[in-house]
Amino acid sequence: MAKYVYDFSEGDKDQKALLGGKGANLAEMTNLGLPVPPGFTITTEACREFLADEAEPAELHVQVTMALRQLEDSVGRRLGDLHEPLLVSVRSGARYSMPGMMDTVLNIGLNDASVKGLVKESGDERFAWDSYRRLLQMFGKTVLEIPGEVFSDALDEAKRKRNATSDLSLDVEDLKALVRTFKREIREHSGAEFPQHPREQLDLAIRAVFHSWNTERARLYRRRERIPQELGTAVNVCTMVFGNLGETSGTGVAFTRDPASGKIGAYGDYLSNAQGEDVVAGIRNTLSLDDLAQLDPPSHRELTKVMRRLETHYRDLCDVEFTIERGKLWMLQTRVGKRTAGAAFRIAAQLVDEQLITLDEALERVSGGQLAQLMFPQFDSGAARDLLTTGMAASPGAAVGRAVFDSSTAGEWAARGERVVLVRRETNPDDLEGMIAAEGILTARGGKTSHAAVVARGMGKTCVCGAEALEVDAIAKKAWVGGRAINEGDVISLDGSTGEIFAGELAVVPSPVEVYIEQGLNVAVQQVDEETAELVRAVDRLLSHADARRRLAVRSNADTAEDAARARKLGAEGIGLCRTEHMFLGDRRSLIEHVIVATDAAERQAALVALLPLQRQDFIELLDAMDGLPVTIRLLDPPLHEFLPDRTDLSVKVALAKERGETGPELDADVKVLAAVERLHESNPMLGLRGVRLGLLIPGLFALQIRAIVEAACSQLKQGKDPRVEIMVPLVGSVMELHLVRDEAQAIIAEVTAEQGVAMDVPIGTMIELPRAALTAHRIADAADFFSFGTNDLTQTTWGFSRDDVEAAVFAVYLAKGVFTISPFETIDADGVGRLVEIAVKEGRQTRPGLKMGVCGEHGGDPESIHFFHKVGLDYVSCSPFRVPVARLEAGRAAVAH
Amino acid sequence: MAKYVYDFSEGDKDQKALLGGKGANLAEMTNLGLPVPPGFTITTEACREFLADEAEPAELHVQVTMALRQLEDSVGRRLGDLHEPLLVSVRSGARYSMPGMMDTVLNIGLNDASVKGLVKESGDERFAWDSYRRLLQMFGKTVLEIPGEVFSDALDEAKRKRNATSDLSLDVEDLKALVRTFKREIREHSGAEFPQHPREQLDLAIRAVFHSWNTERARLYRRRERIPQELGTAVNVCTMVFGNLGETSGTGVAFTRDPASGKIGAYGDYLSNAQGEDVVAGIRNTLSLDDLAQLDPPSHRELTKVMRRLETHYRDLCDVEFTIERGKLWMLQTRVGKRTAGAAFRIAAQLVDEQLITLDEALERVSGGQLAQLMFPQFDSGAARDLLTTGMAASPGAAVGRAVFDSSTAGEWAARGERVVLVRRETNPDDLEGMIAAEGILTARGGKTSHAAVVARGMGKTCVCGAEALEVDAIAKKAWVGGRAINEGDVISLDGSTGEIFAGELAVVPSPVEVYIEQGLNVAVQQVDEETAELVRAVDRLLSHADARRRLAVRSNADTAEDAARARKLGAEGIGLCRTEHMFLGDRRSLIEHVIVATDAAERQAALVALLPLQRQDFIELLDAMDGLPVTIRLLDPPLHEFLPDRTDLSVKVALAKERGETGPELDADVKVLAAVERLHESNPMLGLRGVRLGLLIPGLFALQIRAIVEAACSQLKQGKDPRVEIMVPLVGSVMELHLVRDEAQAIIAEVTAEQGVAMDVPIGTMIELPRAALTAHRIADAADFFSFGTNDLTQTTWGFSRDDVEAAVFAVYLAKGVFTISPFETIDADGVGRLVEIAVKEGRQTRPGLKMGVCGEHGGDPESIHFFHKVGLDYVSCSPFRVPVARLEAGRAAVAH
Repeated sequence: MAKYVYDFSEGDKDQKALLGGKGANLAEMTNLGLPVPPGFTITTEACREFLADEAEPAELHVQVTMALRQLEDSVGRRLGDLHEPLLVSVRSGARYSMPGMMDTVLNIGLNDASVKGLVKESGDERFAWDSYRRLLQMFGKTVLEIPGEVFSDALDEAKRKRNATSDLSLDVEDLKALVRTFKREIREHSGAEFPQHPREQLDLAIRAVFHSWNTERARLYRRRERIPQELGTAVNVCTMVFGNLGETSGTGVAFTRDPASGKIGAYGDYLSNAQGEDVVAGIRNTLSLDDLAQLDPPSHRELTKVMRRLETHYRDLCDVEFTIERGKLWMLQTRVGKRTAGAAFRIAAQLVDEQLITLDEALERVSGGQLAQLMFPQFDSGAARDLLTTGMAASPGAAVGRAVFDSSTAGEWAARGERVVLVRRETNPDDLEGMIAAEGILTARGGKTSHAAVVARGMGKTCVCGAEALEVDAIAKKAWVGGRAINEGDVISLDGSTGEIFAGELAVVPSPVEVYIEQGLNVAVQQVDEETAELVRAVDRLLSHADARRRLAVRSNADTAEDAARARKLGAEGIGLCRTEHMFLGDRRSLIEHVIVATDAAERQAALVALLPLQRQDFIELLDAMDGLPVTIRLLDPPLHEFLPDRTDLSVKVALAKERGETGPELDADVKVLAAVERLHESNPMLGLRGVRLGLLIPGLFALQIRAIVEAACSQLKQGKDPRVEIMVPLVGSVMELHLVRDEAQAIIAEVTAEQGVAMDVPIGTMIELPRAALTAHRIADAADFFSFGTNDLTQTTWGFSRDDVEAAVFAVYLAKGVFTISPFETIDADGVGRLVEIAVKEGRQTRPGLKMGVCGEHGGDPESIHFFHKVGLDYVSCSPFRVPVARLEAGRAAVAH
Repeated sequence: MAKYVYDFSEGDKDQKALLGGKGANLAEMTNLGLPVPPGFTITTEACREFLADEAEPAELHVQVTMALRQLEDSVGRRLGDLHEPLLVSVRSGARYSMPGMMDTVLNIGLNDASVKGLVKESGDERFAWDSYRRLLQMFGKTVLEIPGEVFSDALDEAKRKRNATSDLSLDVEDLKALVRTFKREIREHSGAEFPQHPREQLDLAIRAVFHSWNTERARLYRRRERIPQELGTAVNVCTMVFGNLGETSGTGVAFTRDPASGKIGAYGDYLSNAQGEDVVAGIRNTLSLDDLAQLDPPSHRELTKVMRRLETHYRDLCDVEFTIERGKLWMLQTRVGKRTAGAAFRIAAQLVDEQLITLDEALERVSGGQLAQLMFPQFDSGAARDLLTTGMAASPGAAVGRAVFDSSTAGEWAARGERVVLVRRETNPDDLEGMIAAEGILTARGGKTSHAAVVARGMGKTCVCGAEALEVDAIAKKAWVGGRAINEGDVISLDGSTGEIFAGELAVVPSPVEVYIEQGLNVAVQQVDEETAELVRAVDRLLSHADARRRLAVRSNADTAEDAARARKLGAEGIGLCRTEHMFLGDRRSLIEHVIVATDAAERQAALVALLPLQRQDFIELLDAMDGLPVTIRLLDPPLHEFLPDRTDLSVKVALAKERGETGPELDADVKVLAAVERLHESNPMLGLRGVRLGLLIPGLFALQIRAIVEAACSQLKQGKDPRVEIMVPLVGSVMELHLVRDEAQAIIAEVTAEQGVAMDVPIGTMIELPRAALTAHRIADAADFFSFGTNDLTQTTWGFSRDDVEAAVFAVYLAKGVFTISPFETIDADGVGRLVEIAVKEGRQTRPGLKMGVCGEHGGDPESIHFFHKVGLDYVSCSPFRVPVARLEAGRAAVAH
């Protein structure tokens, strides 16, 4: 027979799954000998069985009876007793905290008879009737699901009659009248009398708490917080204690340290002559703990002792709820407290100093997400705000600048020292210049993994995307949102952490943690206050420990020497992915266009030869910035039409020009380019002529790149540098493809090193970004010196999702319907994509033990994914420069955790 | 030490991998006591080692010496002997027959001295010098790689001088002069004298045979025939016997039955006073075996006896090469003979009748490919032909009709009784009407799995695609090929088995096998000759046996009642895939367009409601045609923009109309549709909003289809029919998607069956067509009553190949470079895609033992793939109607083989 009911003396803090967080901690405090009102917990298992069958498990009723009798015996009162009635609270308490999401009913046990017993026993008639009033109100709303306004309106009406603002102004007769009113409302709305039998009240309240697990609001909250839907909640039945028994009573919440700043010392709010919900409702001004020390020194002393005991016991910041009933302190709840990112780092370091936790444990108390928050500049929270609309928070940070609607204006204005925000319907590789020039990027279309979002994150640049309310007219250089126009030159402010878009300029607060990471501890702690300095030192201490502990190396994705230098400052130990396509944009676009539009081999070869010195110089600068560290360069990957204009736009342009009878070289050029666009047009370019297929189909293309890479490395070597270049082949699906490129590359390496008279080892590896590559990794390993998992593309093909197309429309629905708890482009889908990664790691190393493996998809900077990559045994992760510190921290945490 | 050399008496016919086909069979004949000239075989292993190291394995030389001495001892002659010289032939012989691909050198052992010995010994001076001449010619060409014309020109010149047409007219002096000429040419071209040392001749000839394995021609042949490149060839060294020692000598080839028709009785060609190469060269007219019986009754009797012995021993049609040297029969080669498709079936049935093989063995002697050949109508091979160009043979058959360039003309002309061939640059779903109306389809673009090819094969309609020389101007209703115009109405003929396109009308020969399959044995054997009747009966017998043996059920993909009825006639045991999107074309296009363009829920719902009765009627007809058999209906799969016009075309149209200042309702409608096109535009529709995503995003769409399906089934049930409908959800990647659709479907099923007052079980299953579906099949099985593998899409995502885009351009290069031996869209890629299928089968059945599984991709009709599906344990394959008999046969063969 399952045990569904645990007395508080039976459980402990590690039984959160069974007793919920609140129940487990109440049990823990009980066993520590702290003053907890007696009570018992009904398990989450009972809830799960109830929800599955829509009925209480058979044994539950009997077990509650037994627990209740034991409770009655221990406190010497009986539920519903006419003289000394036992009153209990019924509160939900799930494994993971879901504040305000579920239900509570207080004062169970009061009825028309026992309220009189409470009058006598408490000697406070007003208190007794107010307690009954509260029971009716909560029970009506929570258990009987009568709209809360029915009761609050009646209460307001009663106060209005008295010209009162506070409940305290109502007298006994007012409260008795309210009790009558509430009972009438209950009868009218529920079709039945308020249940006078205390056990019936209790059973209905328990059932209501079970039900509250499955409200739409709670489901939505869990989805957002990634809490599994099937856990269920526990129910805590606890003897009532009262903070509203006069001035020697009161209630409060407190933290063992400041959860906002992390400052040492207890911190809390106290309200005398009040019940818990009054504190939450914010009806009256609260007092500080120091005030309590003045008011009731013994209780304050005991509370301080209890909190110290809890912090020592839990070895972490705790928050507590307490009530003082006529001078007697009662602890109603405790838990490890939530805290801000800054507080998390400070407290973790403090607890190490206090020798309560080890540095390893301290690492588990902070997260990469918190570090990322600390690194972004933010808007001054005190400033006035004029919110225009809200989009998706695609890349955090705070950007202020003049709105511009095209890339070239962005470039020009930025060149003359203006700060600009690039506003586009959506972005494409053409916008890269503008994105580089801009402080921030705002798009009306596209999700968190749209081009704008991905590139912006890669640059560590603020981005808000998919602001659907925004209409962008790039031709008119204007945008509208809710009837308001944004003209070119108007100043706007983007909050990349919230997705908010403001009119005008908001003040930006710089982040000292970013200063530390980029410029070191000494610079960062100058000119900041001691609290901030403590924070920066805490970050330094934990990040250094993560570096010492982690097994994963952290590289960065970087396409330019500037990015590489920045990444290196941020702690990157190499480049995991250099996308060479970005080197074909800007001025060089016409050169690559010549390669594409070429109609014969000679014309193409000439265009390729013109690119060679430019590519070589790119690589020299990149290798220089990463001297002594590995640099993985990916050969050209995207379909060639990406370098050409849009097919529809160009078709319309040419058709209109012809219609107008225009002639001349511009039209001729457009017609020639259109022919190439048509020739290269593909219905699904993601699955088309790209990656290694380009290399095998277009003679000389990969050869050019390989030669440029090897010549650059030779040049560095001859200057006494230490270039460690690696060549990566994209989109391989069969080992034969890799063999063919490898043979070509090795011939070129031999040729160039012979020409240059140097000896050099250039590893040649492949992306694993197609399901087939993962499934045949044991063969591909034959031809690869390393694997780099391209989990973006692997996610696209494994799920059959084009992230550009599907994300915005489908993902919103899928997240709402619970198909995903998080986009698989954000956190790696361990069951599908992750399984392929595991297969490839295992079988690739069976063929070639010790084969070096890394990941260079967006997931390389995602905390949860980093833990996954650690577990499956990768050697490194590579992420955008800005995510490098996050990845370092999470890699350390992963090493500690697993 | 490896044994590289086997005497003919040491091997047997099962050692083909080591000794090659020719060597193994020579050994087998030797051991049967048949008259084989003594000799030995050098193994394929020796060849492989030679090719890997570019040098003979160390032990080979010694082993050849020993084998040669044994040979010399056994025949009592020595190589290069001045009196009785031993002459040997050196012939290649690989595991798989590669006719004419590799090298042969005869008369090794002759030199300036031994030729005189041969003169004396044979008593035939002309013969001896002619033999020397032949050695020089073959050695020069094959071993020394001197162009063959050098020798044949000199020979022709000598004949010209004599005014002779035959070699036989040349006398001894002519031949001696030719020997001198040939030796001079060899010296001049190779820079060295012809090697006089016989052993040197032998070693060089062996090496030349090894080399011949790797000629470009041979590599290409193997790629086409799917023979692995790494096998290597054996070399047979055999005592020379001479058919050119006068009128009592001769040489011939023979078959134990007729390989063209399968007729019982030996069949062959004989040439007296000739060597083997004279027969192949076709210089003189050959005699029949009956002529030989007149000419040399003892030899003919012995040959007949040998052939009977061979057929009994090999239990199959054998072909042989033989030589009669002065009245003595020598067998030079035998093997199981190649045969036509018709002969294969007839011979297999004959051998069963003769109790030489079992019916199971007979099944292994025929193939689905052969059956398919027998089913297609073909052009009369005797008719005159005017070839225009050749494209890809995409769907076999012989189609004759007037060229039309658009779908509506095709429909109109066909409606008035014209036969038409639809000629398009490429086809899209819009062309479906025209494709249905046409006899055949011809496209200028697209590969074997392009839309045109896939749909045509699905319809069993002749199709030639990717005829690159063809320029199609649909507007002008005209096409050009090599300067010739094809105007609308011109008659053309397409051969879908060869890809040839002819001007004018070619006569078509009907296939009696197709008549049999569609109309039964009795109809088919009427009015045909006895030989054809025997063929039809053989097909019937083997197909019936396949049906009895196979474990795989065979269903058909069919979207209409007509297709379903046809498939059923062809033996389909249900419908494995009904694509409902084809029901939204034609007249109903405007209705589905309303659904798509709808701007609010009410407008969309109204459009859906209008579709309901039409869909229901479709399903009623389909279920009626397949009454009593399972019918799997797939919910709407393609992206919605497929039902709308092309974005670029429409953009140009609207831009031009606006430029011209046009107004009116047509433009307004275009503008509205263009807005929808823009809204639905996706960069990669294959990976976009389609399949189950549509169902979850567009309220009411799947509900409409499910209701139509269930109402149709109820209607059938109430009429006493036996509808067995199954609902299939496309593009599922996560079990949650399937749960959501399943919940909706079950609610509708419950509602409709309650309305109609019937009880019915409607299984709900899913396509497994995404890698993630396969990888999480153990979860998806929780919500699926069946799995149907969509291996087309699964191949696209696993490889990251869009078949529409990539096939033509990439596959040609990939096949040439050996990345593929065959397109993975044609035969399932067992290592990648197949591995996913295996995972899903195994893990799906772990969750739900006995889960029904089938395949409905193109691979369901491909012989090699069918064997794969049998092995992994699927329950059925589903293919296009025309492939059903092929699939039945191959499923039977798979059951016998595995």
